[in-house]
Amino acid sequence: MSETASLRTGGPASIASYGALTRTDRAKSKSAFISRGRLSTLSRLTMPEYSASAPTSPHSPRSFKDSILTSRRPISSYDQSGDGVDYQNAEMDVKTNGIRVWYSSFTSIDWLHDTIKDSARHSRLRRHKSTRGILLRELDRSIGWVIVTIVGLLTAVVAFLIVRSEQWLFDIKEGYCREGWLMARRFCCAVKDDSAYRSSLPESPCPAWRTWADVFGPMVKEGNRMGFEAEMVEYVAYALVALSLAVVSSLLTLNLTASTSFVTRKDSGVLSPEFADLDAGVKTLPAPARSEQRRKVLYYAAGSGIPEIKTILSGFVIHGYLGGRTLFTKSVGLALSVASGLSLGKEGPFVHIASCIGNIVSRFFGKYENNEAKRREILSAASAAGVAVAFGAPIGGVLFSLEEVSYFFPAKVMWRSFFCAMVAAMTLKLLDPFGSGKLVLFQVTYDKDWHAYELIFFLLLGVFGGVWGAYFSKLNVRWTRYVRNGTWLKAHPVFEVFLVTLLTTILCFVNPYTRMGMTELVYNLFAECRPGSANSHEGLCVLNPPEQAMPVIRAIFVALIVKGALTIITFGIKLPAGIFIPSLGGKSLKLAAVGACAGRILGILVQWMQFSHPDSPIFASCKGDLDCVVPGLYAMVGAAATLSGVTRTTVSLAVIMFELTDTLTYTVPVILSVLVAKTVADALEPKGIYDLVIDLSELPYLDAKHTHLWGNLQIDDVTDRNVDVIRLEFENTVKTLRDQLQALILAGHSDGGFPILRANGEGQRMVGYIGANELEHALSIVADDADRAISFHSVGPYEHGGPMMASFSSEAESAMQGALDSFDFSPYMDQAPITVQSNSPLELVHQFFIKLGARYVVVIDTDGFYEGVIDKKTWLAFLGQLDEKTS
Amino acid sequence: MSETASLRTGGPASIASYGALTRTDRAKSKSAFISRGRLSTLSRLTMPEYSASAPTSPHSPRSFKDSILTSRRPISSYDQSGDGVDYQNAEMDVKTNGIRVWYSSFTSIDWLHDTIKDSARHSRLRRHKSTRGILLRELDRSIGWVIVTIVGLLTAVVAFLIVRSEQWLFDIKEGYCREGWLMARRFCCAVKDDSAYRSSLPESPCPAWRTWADVFGPMVKEGNRMGFEAEMVEYVAYALVALSLAVVSSLLTLNLTASTSFVTRKDSGVLSPEFADLDAGVKTLPAPARSEQRRKVLYYAAGSGIPEIKTILSGFVIHGYLGGRTLFTKSVGLALSVASGLSLGKEGPFVHIASCIGNIVSRFFGKYENNEAKRREILSAASAAGVAVAFGAPIGGVLFSLEEVSYFFPAKVMWRSFFCAMVAAMTLKLLDPFGSGKLVLFQVTYDKDWHAYELIFFLLLGVFGGVWGAYFSKLNVRWTRYVRNGTWLKAHPVFEVFLVTLLTTILCFVNPYTRMGMTELVYNLFAECRPGSANSHEGLCVLNPPEQAMPVIRAIFVALIVKGALTIITFGIKLPAGIFIPSLGGKSLKLAAVGACAGRILGILVQWMQFSHPDSPIFASCKGDLDCVVPGLYAMVGAAATLSGVTRTTVSLAVIMFELTDTLTYTVPVILSVLVAKTVADALEPKGIYDLVIDLSELPYLDAKHTHLWGNLQIDDVTDRNVDVIRLEFENTVKTLRDQLQALILAGHSDGGFPILRANGEGQRMVGYIGANELEHALSIVADDADRAISFHSVGPYEHGGPMMASFSSEAESAMQGALDSFDFSPYMDQAPITVQSNSPLELVHQFFIKLGARYVVVIDTDGFYEGVIDKKTWLAFLGQLDEKTS
Repeated sequence: MSETASLRTGGPASIASYGALTRTDRAKSKSAFISRGRLSTLSRLTMPEYSASAPTSPHSPRSFKDSILTSRRPISSYDQSGDGVDYQNAEMDVKTNGIRVWYSSFTSIDWLHDTIKDSARHSRLRRHKSTRGILLRELDRSIGWVIVTIVGLLTAVVAFLIVRSEQWLFDIKEGYCREGWLMARRFCCAVKDDSAYRSSLPESPCPAWRTWADVFGPMVKEGNRMGFEAEMVEYVAYALVALSLAVVSSLLTLNLTASTSFVTRKDSGVLSPEFADLDAGVKTLPAPARSEQRRKVLYYAAGSGIPEIKTILSGFVIHGYLGGRTLFTKSVGLALSVASGLSLGKEGPFVHIASCIGNIVSRFFGKYENNEAKRREILSAASAAGVAVAFGAPIGGVLFSLEEVSYFFPAKVMWRSFFCAMVAAMTLKLLDPFGSGKLVLFQVTYDKDWHAYELIFFLLLGVFGGVWGAYFSKLNVRWTRYVRNGTWLKAHPVFEVFLVTLLTTILCFVNPYTRMGMTELVYNLFAECRPGSANSHEGLCVLNPPEQAMPVIRAIFVALIVKGALTIITFGIKLPAGIFIPSLGGKSLKLAAVGACAGRILGILVQWMQFSHPDSPIFASCKGDLDCVVPGLYAMVGAAATLSGVTRTTVSLAVIMFELTDTLTYTVPVILSVLVAKTVADALEPKGIYDLVIDLSELPYLDAKHTHLWGNLQIDDVTDRNVDVIRLEFENTVKTLRDQLQALILAGHSDGGFPILRANGEGQRMVGYIGANELEHALSIVADDADRAISFHSVGPYEHGGPMMASFSSEAESAMQGALDSFDFSPYMDQAPITVQSNSPLELVHQFFIKLGARYVVVIDTDGFYEGVIDKKTWLAFLGQLDEKTS
Repeated sequence: MSETASLRTGGPASIASYGALTRTDRAKSKSAFISRGRLSTLSRLTMPEYSASAPTSPHSPRSFKDSILTSRRPISSYDQSGDGVDYQNAEMDVKTNGIRVWYSSFTSIDWLHDTIKDSARHSRLRRHKSTRGILLRELDRSIGWVIVTIVGLLTAVVAFLIVRSEQWLFDIKEGYCREGWLMARRFCCAVKDDSAYRSSLPESPCPAWRTWADVFGPMVKEGNRMGFEAEMVEYVAYALVALSLAVVSSLLTLNLTASTSFVTRKDSGVLSPEFADLDAGVKTLPAPARSEQRRKVLYYAAGSGIPEIKTILSGFVIHGYLGGRTLFTKSVGLALSVASGLSLGKEGPFVHIASCIGNIVSRFFGKYENNEAKRREILSAASAAGVAVAFGAPIGGVLFSLEEVSYFFPAKVMWRSFFCAMVAAMTLKLLDPFGSGKLVLFQVTYDKDWHAYELIFFLLLGVFGGVWGAYFSKLNVRWTRYVRNGTWLKAHPVFEVFLVTLLTTILCFVNPYTRMGMTELVYNLFAECRPGSANSHEGLCVLNPPEQAMPVIRAIFVALIVKGALTIITFGIKLPAGIFIPSLGGKSLKLAAVGACAGRILGILVQWMQFSHPDSPIFASCKGDLDCVVPGLYAMVGAAATLSGVTRTTVSLAVIMFELTDTLTYTVPVILSVLVAKTVADALEPKGIYDLVIDLSELPYLDAKHTHLWGNLQIDDVTDRNVDVIRLEFENTVKTLRDQLQALILAGHSDGGFPILRANGEGQRMVGYIGANELEHALSIVADDADRAISFHSVGPYEHGGPMMASFSSEAESAMQGALDSFDFSPYMDQAPITVQSNSPLELVHQFFIKLGARYVVVIDTDGFYEGVIDKKTWLAFLGQLDEKTS
């Protein structure tokens, strides 16, 4: 019964069942052949003789078809289907914007439609006046909170698992714990005082920890070269483990989450970097059409994922990018690749992992599962949680989600993101991954204030951060474009990973600062040197500058150069956190390390200057105190500046720094350097790394921040007049529409649709618009009745509730009306698409896309006649050309 | 020459000249009579015989009129006027959205039009390829930064002046400084140690400070009653000074910034809380029309101003609300009223003061002066600066502006607000208003962490904050509505101020906690009790709970009750920070004090419990340490909860608390209580105080956060079909249009306009839309040619650049074309208003208003024929009714 009902009602039920079917009974259910996506549908479309025999259910296709026969069963009677959904009210959607079926991969969502859908759902909920209705309403209201709570909890748990396994794997390169193979050095050596962390640093004695040299040392002959040989053993063990970790991680990434898509270039004047999910259709494509498509492989678990998540949040659909398999691969691969010692952070990927969790959890709740726009609210909150666990910065996480990741961020979402981030941070604190009781590993507690004269140095650090940030981005993009993608490396990603790891182990093994993990390095660079702590912090503390400064500066400088160079070649290797789509989020701590090195060097230099010339007027505010410069503060400021130069975030970055270091005293230095870095970097390269990567990956991201210069261009210069239309004055049958749809898909416009027009006087008037997805869905139901006519009706505003009237039926159809029934496809038609007059300014169209999130805009002339369509992809391509011309 | 040119070109020049003229040569310039606003224009319209003689310039009106005669001078030739503005390009605006003249007071701005205008301005700037052009462009790009820098600096200076004078005036109630009349007690008694603040507390000895008892004491006879009499002297002096300060402040507010407006109720079914600035028109109104209008006096300097600023930022125009006179009155009045000892804070008004500064500074820069939408970007940044100086919280300021004040807050604005807030905070820190070197007076440095068991108490504080917040708002609104506005108090605002001040002095003089300033009270409540500080902090520290706790608790409880009660009666008195429109921003510190009192009481109770039962399992985490409860932390959490309950801000409030107390350790307690308080308060009363005040003041604020339930309603249920239209098939002359306009204004629809229609087949097609302002402006130019015809043309997309063609001229006009010239009003017409099909969902219309900021939407039927108009005020009224019905 429920199967029949869901098919009979076509739209809403199939939306609902799609979600359910993807998980449970997709394979066995009768409905599945409708919802299984383009593969089955297209094959039905191209092979009608097959389709007739495809259904194996006892119900014949005939019974579903009956439901869309105009004369027999009007849509408005669907509410008698009794499957729990109130179709009388679901009809509201029908009347206004048309039923939408699922969004297939690599298409844009229609924010407006989804907003309207949710608004209708709300009204429906309000109509129940019973106690059960009130309960349902309250449940509905709290469901978002329940989801973000679960997402926050799970994110913290996953982060905890990753951090713990990464610590263990990281240390396994050097040795193992006698007291338990699965213990990381930190826990193996833990002493019961509050400086649990410091005791785990290499210089402390730790009897429970056996290095590989201890293990294999006895096998090496005793003698005067023992020291060297022990080192060799250590190095070989280190390199072997590191290489295995990196290669396994790379293989996981390449094999588990690869997805092939095609980039189509339209043959019209307008070039569109357009994805098309043609796994099925492409097989039947004639040769000439295929030559215009470029094969493109996306590895879902590769990179930080932030550019893709930005694109997804802006309203693009990439099925599986936030799925369970990606979550698994990314989590395991991340732990492996970070442990391998490659200069990768885990901060960016945490955002991706949190988003996967958000996506998976929201699948269990219809309110979010069936509404892509609503689901993105959960994803925004999840991103905040990701940053919160990565940096221990819940407020910074919310701001990062607002400033960098999210597209629409209403107050309600901000408030929920805040809660989600807090839950994640609190849970992680309870789980205590570092064994230090602190959420933030490198918390600092400077007890000295900064001085006005230091502002000039902070400004210099800002300039350094900006220049480095801009050139880092440029170099990385060029490296990817010309070296990696231009040479044989492209075909051998695993070998590239192997080479880079080998080089990294060779370069990093010899220098203590490059060898230690990113987090440790940053912790030590940020650290304040207290009188008693001369030997801690890896010898970074300089108490008597003239004697001690130079060696320390030299060592940090080597670390700076090595890390800087490795960044370029590591960028974009095929690993979670640093792959094809490069991981800048993932590299954030890496970059922080470069900035922190530069800052620490400057700090020591200033300390030296002050030590040598304590009476100089510049240092007057120190009042002769030789200990008044805090090099750790310079490191922190340098790190902030570098991050700002690369990512171009400002407010969120400053807040993350405050939360990282648990201090607000240094607001002015941090913010000054962040501002300077962003300004300098913007002047050198207008786009931040995330946007550069989006361009590089040809993702269809419509940037709301960028302002465009329209010049003398008109709407007519953009309008796509060649778009295929459905004209009601001709006879439309299942066959003709199927041919039209097939032509559209083969041309790579699978994200498009058909305006439905009727002749009126000297022109064509718009009746509605039907998307390719919806048409495909509707046709698949009636595929074996190829010659039956299809009608589209417009429902007048006062006609709802009553039987549907065919206001505009084609003449051919009217002629047949009495004799032959026609299929009514109106429920799938958007009867009120946004229209724009052709003499409107282009800025208006832009606002429709960026502020309302429209998917297409229909252009009409001043007489109200149809002129053409502008869809989101056409608009993106137009903006790309426009910017090329004006820049 | 320039005068003639500016008039000849009508639109853009008059927009530009309006800004310039308002400041400089308004009175003498010829153009002034056009731009002087509704007064002169309406009088010209109603008295044509007068208007002919009005201009005193040597140029005759004839020459301006010639410029809009269709046949003689097409609009496109205006670029030859040579007054420096590129009219060829300005025509872009003409072609698309029509020229807009100034926005008159109490009208809504058209965000969309202003965005498009700025986009066109940008394109124009880009067209200059010369060095000068590039320079101009760079200058244009940096102008926003220059403005926010100036705004930040000036805000800090003004805040400094207010704080210093308020401190002096506050202390003058108790005595004066021997070493200089103009010194506040704090500076008079300052000792050169870092606890400069503590030394100024009453108990410290301070020989330089003479109390009034010292001065007048000798006059009072010596004797055993001396103590009592000295106190009487002190009280009388205190009360006299306080009363004078309050009354002067009230008189300033009432007399300098009063503005009368009228609230019109439409006689159609839809009731609209609509303002109309009818200073001029109302004089000539017939009696029946006036009876439908209610007189409403707005005191610009009264209250915190945040609700009004919210409304202004959402796109409403209130001329003078952010002007120089308001700035002066608000600043002086604020210092006086806070000094009087009334329970008012200065935090909210600082936002208003900063916005005034932002508005005044932006007047000097055409880019912002001529574009109301752009100007609001500066106002958003200024609000952030206001919070930054009020709380010493730059990041919190940005978030407050984002979360509470601003309507549109793009990334660019966030970034600039951040800078503005930083400049303001840094400058204020340098100016050092408190003489303590700290930006934040009540910075705390708790060195103890919180314990898990305390979360239950923080949760309780959250519930308290929520309940108090909800009932406080409700009670205050009721007090204002029924007691103040319903009794004779309404007519005697100064007497009310007098009474409240008298009561305050009587109640507060006797209790040390209520007598001290708000800031001091909060500082002491937040303070941590260190072993050595038993007697500091006004005896709030309890070292031995069983003996000492009860008296302290009793004293704080009295302060809580007294302050709580005074809040109700102080709410809405006519003073800056607490007037007709009540000052919740202004009272934020007040509320913080109530919450802090409650929190401190709870903290002492917990301390007592722990002291009595140190071995109880709940207190296990204290490990027997009797000093493990920090009552100051409870005070801080209580303050945050109360503020959240009242204002319903979350993220920004939490960040402000962190910045205020310079600590992030207590993230979890603060956020937990804030979340609980908001949830509880939302359940009891869905609207925050700002929104309640907006309702109370009948401000036209379109809330983007609220979700509406459309139910079965259709666009047709909202569409205003009775709106007067201009039909091109009839003859339109200066006289007929003037009559139509006058009818519109008399009906109170001065914010409206006229759709321009032409007959076409069986219906009317929309040609364009002309706003009342624009029509008035255009008519005022040609007022003495009453019988001349007026034409409206539509410019096709391809026709720009060439001579303008009259595509749709009325038949009457065509007939006259050869013989008599007609005036061409097309440049003032919006040729491409947003249209919506009548079968579209209501949510779409809502999105047009809230996301695009449209001012009106034209409704067409499915055949493209005109049906009616929905303007912003109609929509607001509709939403009001809808919410009443569904709630």
